[in-house]
Amino acid sequence: MSEGLPRYAYLGPAGTFTEAALRQVAPVGECVDLPVSDVSSAIEAVRTGDADFAVVAIESTVEGGVTATLDSLAGGDPLVIVREMLVPVQFTLAAAPFVRIEDVRRISAHPHAWVQCRRWLARHLPSVVHVPATSNTAPAALIAAGGAELPFDAALVPPAAVDSYGLVPLAVDVADNVSAQTRFVVVGHPGAVPPRTGADKTTLVVHLPDNEAGALLAMLEQFAVRGVNLSRIESRPIGDALGRYSFSLDAEGHITDERVGEAVMGLHRRCPYVRFLGSYPRADAVEPTVHVGTADTDFVGARTWLQALRSGTAT
Amino acid sequence: MSEGLPRYAYLGPAGTFTEAALRQVAPVGECVDLPVSDVSSAIEAVRTGDADFAVVAIESTVEGGVTATLDSLAGGDPLVIVREMLVPVQFTLAAAPFVRIEDVRRISAHPHAWVQCRRWLARHLPSVVHVPATSNTAPAALIAAGGAELPFDAALVPPAAVDSYGLVPLAVDVADNVSAQTRFVVVGHPGAVPPRTGADKTTLVVHLPDNEAGALLAMLEQFAVRGVNLSRIESRPIGDALGRYSFSLDAEGHITDERVGEAVMGLHRRCPYVRFLGSYPRADAVEPTVHVGTADTDFVGARTWLQALRSGTAT
Amino acid sequence: MSEGLPRYAYLGPAGTFTEAALRQVAPVGECVDLPVSDVSSAIEAVRTGDADFAVVAIESTVEGGVTATLDSLAGGDPLVIVREMLVPVQFTLAAAPFVRIEDVRRISAHPHAWVQCRRWLARHLPSVVHVPATSNTAPAALIAAGGAELPFDAALVPPAAVDSYGLVPLAVDVADNVSAQTRFVVVGHPGAVPPRTGADKTTLVVHLPDNEAGALLAMLEQFAVRGVNLSRIESRPIGDALGRYSFSLDAEGHITDERVGEAVMGLHRRCPYVRFLGSYPRADAVEPTVHVGTADTDFVGARTWLQALRSGTAT
Amino acid sequence: MSEGLPRYAYLGPAGTFTEAALRQVAPVGECVDLPVSDVSSAIEAVRTGDADFAVVAIESTVEGGVTATLDSLAGGDPLVIVREMLVPVQFTLAAAPFVRIEDVRRISAHPHAWVQCRRWLARHLPSVVHVPATSNTAPAALIAAGGAELPFDAALVPPAAVDSYGLVPLAVDVADNVSAQTRFVVVGHPGAVPPRTGADKTTLVVHLPDNEAGALLAMLEQFAVRGVNLSRIESRPIGDALGRYSFSLDAEGHITDERVGEAVMGLHRRCPYVRFLGSYPRADAVEPTVHVGTADTDFVGARTWLQALRSGTAT
Repeated sequence: MSEGLPRYAYLGPAGTFTEAALRQVAPVGECVDLPVSDVSSAIEAVRTGDADFAVVAIESTVEGGVTATLDSLAGGDPLVIVREMLVPVQFTLAAAPFVRIEDVRRISAHPHAWVQCRRWLARHLPSVVHVPATSNTAPAALIAAGGAELPFDAALVPPAAVDSYGLVPLAVDVADNVSAQTRFVVVGHPGAVPPRTGADKTTLVVHLPDNEAGALLAMLEQFAVRGVNLSRIESRPIGDALGRYSFSLDAEGHITDERVGEAVMGLHRRCPYVRFLGSYPRADAVEPTVHVGTADTDFVGARTWLQALRSGTAT
Repeated sequence: MSEGLPRYAYLGPAGTFTEAALRQVAPVGECVDLPVSDVSSAIEAVRTGDADFAVVAIESTVEGGVTATLDSLAGGDPLVIVREMLVPVQFTLAAAPFVRIEDVRRISAHPHAWVQCRRWLARHLPSVVHVPATSNTAPAALIAAGGAELPFDAALVPPAAVDSYGLVPLAVDVADNVSAQTRFVVVGHPGAVPPRTGADKTTLVVHLPDNEAGALLAMLEQFAVRGVNLSRIESRPIGDALGRYSFSLDAEGHITDERVGEAVMGLHRRCPYVRFLGSYPRADAVEPTVHVGTADTDFVGARTWLQALRSGTAT
Repeated sequence: MSEGLPRYAYLGPAGTFTEAALRQVAPVGECVDLPVSDVSSAIEAVRTGDADFAVVAIESTVEGGVTATLDSLAGGDPLVIVREMLVPVQFTLAAAPFVRIEDVRRISAHPHAWVQCRRWLARHLPSVVHVPATSNTAPAALIAAGGAELPFDAALVPPAAVDSYGLVPLAVDVADNVSAQTRFVVVGHPGAVPPRTGADKTTLVVHLPDNEAGALLAMLEQFAVRGVNLSRIESRPIGDALGRYSFSLDAEGHITDERVGEAVMGLHRRCPYVRFLGSYPRADAVEPTVHVGTADTDFVGARTWLQALRSGTAT
Repeated sequence: MSEGLPRYAYLGPAGTFTEAALRQVAPVGECVDLPVSDVSSAIEAVRTGDADFAVVAIESTVEGGVTATLDSLAGGDPLVIVREMLVPVQFTLAAAPFVRIEDVRRISAHPHAWVQCRRWLARHLPSVVHVPATSNTAPAALIAAGGAELPFDAALVPPAAVDSYGLVPLAVDVADNVSAQTRFVVVGHPGAVPPRTGADKTTLVVHLPDNEAGALLAMLEQFAVRGVNLSRIESRPIGDALGRYSFSLDAEGHITDERVGEAVMGLHRRCPYVRFLGSYPRADAVEPTVHVGTADTDFVGARTWLQALRSGTAT
């Protein structure tokens, strides 16, 4: 019985990197898996109530920010990130039983997978042809379904897909960047913020008051003057014209940290649009450097002192 | 005879948006067209000497920076941008003669095209299936080649591809964002910089000295203190780890502008890596705002004054 | 009966500019006048309880900050400024009856008065000799006391001293700078802060965290990021060594203004020493420019929003 | 014969602190001493050609900047500082022979001397009366001139004046601050700048473009962005109104340092008024911290690189 179990929408089917991320959060049997065909659909499933959470990729070491995720979260009904997970990105060249690597002429792969294995392919299989796939696991499913009519001989798939679909590995770890990883997040409805752990991250979307370099500088000063570091900053075109940008930011710290709270209030005062996308534990558990005068006790002490000044009771 | 004509590598074949961009620079007959299958190959063709120039997309209002272009230019042998062009992005739903729109069940489209027409499709053809294509024109070529065995009934293609391939339009202007456009650039070998027009842009790639928000602030101050505005800033992961970023920037002005030159020297002094990707006329011909004290004459006057101070001849 | 009337220590005796300032606050008969011989004694009288208030000069258009006042307030038992007054600074050349200007050879004057009338003296009485006085009114008192033995023939005195001491004016308005004025303040014990009028000033003393130019910049950013302008900034050596400075500041606004409060808390967190010297109405009644996003309602709105984010109730 | 010897105007007569400063530069017999009665006269003597140089106090640990010096240099015909010297500030209570300290009732002293010995006097001679003097040595001269009619019994004088005037010391080192010192400068005509020693200082006067806190911040950023530290900053009212300030600055480094030159050019471009008051060796011989990327070689390297970019020859 799955009744009462949390429902997770994710880029499926079984065997995807996203499923690997989902398994870090909710083992099989402890959740209802709701595989969907793209990131936007996963996020939308939470908005419509079809799912409780979505697990989506948000950034990769190779490709940078995941456009569809960033854009889906930046607009529409408010959602928040409640957790992040890191998944190593590797690929296996796999095929149906009895296929030999020297017979491979056509390889099915999602375009992103193809790009990430390009140097390996150029070296080992220089004359193969790319047959584009709609997802990393779609060709695995086609192989598993059998049939001699497939327009390809092998596929680049996530390691987990080899077993899921009963494939045979021809070569493992074929991605060019051996340390590549993707950051995934769990997205849910706004509500109680995950408690502060001391190694947290706060994600925000901010539009600048105008189109000048000075406005970006002023926005960054809202963080700097409170000693808040940024671990990620990405610009996205606002969409109506070239030259207008929205910034997606990860600030080190939790929304309940005094320094983060004051910085975020500063943004709210000065910028035309600020969206809070959640505070949640960092997957790497790295604690932020706290600069002199920016600990919570410093803020509380300053507030107590100010109140004494205002009431004329400072000593 | 094409001997002596400049050779342009571009994302082909005929009918692509990139070809539309190329035609703004070099009409048919005044250049040698070298269609290639992806942006990186186009840029590489210039590096190897197979082409004199590459025409590549660098930014779209919908998707933001074009990752492959930004990354190919940021590393490898130095190349520079010598010109930019804007191309409106629209799509036509087209098919072979005699296909009726009410019979369309499967549509072939590059994934980016599919995304940009999603709302139109949801409204008008809610039950169609996406058949991924490797490019915007690949399905047009398949239709043109004929054959009853095609796995799709119609395709989303650039307007120019309809005629190029003898298709029949079923619906025009089906992209969701009617003002969408893409910025293309011409990339060539370093050499004489295109002369200053007064409405120019300078493109740079910069790595920060360390991983702190303060470093980004310090980098932006190099521009602000000389009154140079930025019209674009994008972060790209450096690739070896999450959390390290390279910044791709467009500064308003020409490398021979005094204020731009001094800002760029400031970056060179303080940042571990700066790559100059060219100064070239802005496609929109918008002249920059020149702030008080930052015109060339101000810099020249200050230098003259400083020399007089140093030689003891100031009056 | 003067019982119960407020007692004001000031640089006396009658006829000084300081008395003119005192009269703006407390007409004759509504206070107890406590003339003392120097600024430090006036301030000390408040600390010892001999006076309720001190009226002291704090800044002049000609001389700048009044060192003794700034230093007396910066250290010792805490006192605060509760009001400021502007007094025009003019001098009258005066003497005993029957003295003719053409007979004047020696002029008694406080060194500061002498300096402020130097150009007039050079033009009209080029050969006179300066006989230094301990105060602006001391020579008037000596003339009034009579006696043929005075070592001077005339004196530079404040206009009010002419009548007070029964002198005869030989020339009026002899100060070189016709628009010269001095700013005076009323100093009292900390307690209820004067209510905000909308045109207020807040005076602070701040030591920097270290000896670098960057520290001054960081201190000023605490004001700038909250949109608080400074109307005065003066450095004073800390006294133990050349090169260490204390800054005396007037910020536009009242300590109960949200933006001023947050800036002052920022100083408290980051600087080794901050002393609040009071919030009080500006003598010139000029209201500050309130920059976008820095009105009290902006701060309150931001705080409400932050609380909603933290409690998960933001909509 | 003093012909051809440099002529130094200074605050005389013999025995003053200023003479002690002069002696560090020009021993007796190697210059022509031109004692004058005040700082402004000393500086004016250089402007009129009556002297080659002036030796004047510019800053004291106790009093801060010397107003008359700062103001005389900030306006009028251009002069420059060519050297600085530090002089410890101590006072001796001295009298004619046969005067006993227990008989001292009235002490002659320049007001500044009186202030600096106030605590010692309060402790040891609490009931003495202050008889103001026009200079630190004037009372010594009066004692030396003899006569029973002096209106005082003893005087606070610089140590050097005791011998110069044949006085008898009653108490030595009576200044309250034992580490007090005064910084003196040699002022001369603009001309060849003293060569760079590696431990230099550059003095400037700067007016801000407007009356805002942001303008001071922007001015300081001109230094910060080039890594130039300030060792002194003082504001002086511009004189026409309260609230308009001129800034007097000492920057670490020499005008021929690349980083100083570029910062000074930045001021020239952005500020309505900049006056160069000289580059000269620091009396304390402390070398500045050179921040990453701000050495001369960094500037020269950046310039070479920029020229290569502009000419299209960068590799």
